[in-house]
Amino acid sequence: MNIGILGGGQLGRMIALAGIDLDIHCRVLEPGATCPAAAVAEHIDGEFEDYAVLWRFAAGLDAITLEFENVPVASAEWLAERLPVYPPPAALSIAQDRIREKTFFAQRGIAVPEFRGVESREDLEYAIADLGLPAVLKTTRFGYDGKGQGVISTPAQIDEVWASLGGRSLIYEAFVPFERELSILGCRSRSGEIVFWPPTENHHRDGMLRRSIAPAPGLTAEIETRAQGIARRTLDDLNYVGVLAIELFECGGELIVNEMAPRVHNSGHWTTEASETSQFANHLRAVAGLPLGSTRMRGPCEMWNIIGSIPPIEMLLMIPGLSLHLYGKKPRPGRKLGHLTIAAPDADALAQRSREVARLVGEVRAEDAIAGHRG
Amino acid sequence: MNIGILGGGQLGRMIALAGIDLDIHCRVLEPGATCPAAAVAEHIDGEFEDYAVLWRFAAGLDAITLEFENVPVASAEWLAERLPVYPPPAALSIAQDRIREKTFFAQRGIAVPEFRGVESREDLEYAIADLGLPAVLKTTRFGYDGKGQGVISTPAQIDEVWASLGGRSLIYEAFVPFERELSILGCRSRSGEIVFWPPTENHHRDGMLRRSIAPAPGLTAEIETRAQGIARRTLDDLNYVGVLAIELFECGGELIVNEMAPRVHNSGHWTTEASETSQFANHLRAVAGLPLGSTRMRGPCEMWNIIGSIPPIEMLLMIPGLSLHLYGKKPRPGRKLGHLTIAAPDADALAQRSREVARLVGEVRAEDAIAGHRG
Repeated sequence: MNIGILGGGQLGRMIALAGIDLDIHCRVLEPGATCPAAAVAEHIDGEFEDYAVLWRFAAGLDAITLEFENVPVASAEWLAERLPVYPPPAALSIAQDRIREKTFFAQRGIAVPEFRGVESREDLEYAIADLGLPAVLKTTRFGYDGKGQGVISTPAQIDEVWASLGGRSLIYEAFVPFERELSILGCRSRSGEIVFWPPTENHHRDGMLRRSIAPAPGLTAEIETRAQGIARRTLDDLNYVGVLAIELFECGGELIVNEMAPRVHNSGHWTTEASETSQFANHLRAVAGLPLGSTRMRGPCEMWNIIGSIPPIEMLLMIPGLSLHLYGKKPRPGRKLGHLTIAAPDADALAQRSREVARLVGEVRAEDAIAGHRG
Repeated sequence: MNIGILGGGQLGRMIALAGIDLDIHCRVLEPGATCPAAAVAEHIDGEFEDYAVLWRFAAGLDAITLEFENVPVASAEWLAERLPVYPPPAALSIAQDRIREKTFFAQRGIAVPEFRGVESREDLEYAIADLGLPAVLKTTRFGYDGKGQGVISTPAQIDEVWASLGGRSLIYEAFVPFERELSILGCRSRSGEIVFWPPTENHHRDGMLRRSIAPAPGLTAEIETRAQGIARRTLDDLNYVGVLAIELFECGGELIVNEMAPRVHNSGHWTTEASETSQFANHLRAVAGLPLGSTRMRGPCEMWNIIGSIPPIEMLLMIPGLSLHLYGKKPRPGRKLGHLTIAAPDADALAQRSREVARLVGEVRAEDAIAGHRG
């Protein structure tokens, strides 16, 4: 079986890695002489918009998937006329546009933050008058890891945020006073079978995911069922195949959809160690037309991203129950270079290891920050 | 970090796979146009006795290890004069010769089956007179998976077994009326740190491992401590670095060493799923001079080999908690093509899944054979 992956970053690398044990050969398309996935997959260096490259990429493949949502929809559609492309290009098209995405959920009665499209400074004034402050102004397309957005808390900030973002298609989103951010990952097979991993609690700083806790602590069965309902509706309505991630705000016992990612997701990296089947393996199984694997958790765990620089790996590996995943990327400020997961026999040990990790990766855990303020 | 592996079969493949996440680049030496490890490692096609090939293989490596014990000792020693080779060639030299191996253990007061060296038909007669029947006659060197050995239960079988084995250096081993076969895997770091995985119960048919159960059911703490003692003594005395497997007979509350394997071992394949650190990851960590990882089990599990032909993978993957590992090899009778592990939330579920696997891989579980006889 030969599977193509549009994109050869760390997500492509981990999908291809999951293929090795299933004797599934992966080929990635990524511009550049090398890429993280090249260590475990055939790498084709070329542009996603170059149809001669796409032709060469597709030759001999059984199916195609992707590792990032900003694949040009026209390219995905062109490929889908020739062989199976999962997830379907329609899901990409929705996920690439924040207004289309929010409209998709709102039309199904699924709560999203209140929003207005902003094409001009005048539109922005109307949106502020309409939805009030604070709010977040975002580019409609191509935002990631907190890039392409600005928070407007006071009228004094309007000019500055407009200066950095104005001139592009924007969306003005009312601020949601959420208690925490969750994500739910589901996977749908070609035959319509759906599995879910337990929802994860996610901690961001500077717009980038830093830490995920799985399962989300203190999650009620009601919230979990509701999260699954949102994901199931989305998967079925899009006739989706593969892993889909939905980011959610938990807010006064309600769930509000922040955004969706039509791919394997950073907040599901813990599944490699702590789930009987990882998101990467199940994604590939779905794309390859194989039955999905059990998502039963092997135990509670935390995932931490390694961003900007890699702590001494000898020190990381001294922490019991820690699994390290480096992506083979050169260090650079703000760049995701790897992640790690921590498991432990009990909650106390997990918390202790988590504190050690926080020190090594240079983060402050939310719990400890609160304790610090109280103390 | 660049690590060389002598041998590019499935064990080399799984060691190299464990290296990906640590950003350790592996290069394997294996004669032939391709090999299982080539999917995840750089492959050099050449002979282990060709010093020009060894020179090319070693260029730029930080350390060298091996995936099979029959690497020519002279080649390992030649490499060890140039860069670190783990495990040390002396361990190879002992493991390659059944007489030297048994002598090594016997000299340390560790029980082994009674044995005699056999170089002639006359030696064989003496050995039979001395140690009696039944017994096993084995080639001293290069035996594996039941090859190069024959059981002599009655005097009538002597001629036949001699005809198939005579002319080579042989060892006559008294039959041990063991209750079961266990194995213990340990790993020793460059700094002398040692970790153990729980002993495994192993089931063979036709001389090949079919199934391993981890941890070995009903194992007493005393037996586990004794197994660890044997392995620790061996690791320390050989100044060993990496994973070492020791096969043991459990016999009337005693342990008798069958043989050792100076490498990662088939009976430890379950560690990929059911241990916080796999044998492959710890082996590589040892060889690379990194701290060893926790060997805490994530839960009980079984490992089954896939030999000769691959059952429909769609059917295998339908079994919950099953993880499949294919080696990318062409099917052939008696060839190890892959393995699988099964996990389950409780013992009943594990037994049920184990029975389903037995049917699919065409084996009869020892428990079910006994039940059948009783019924």
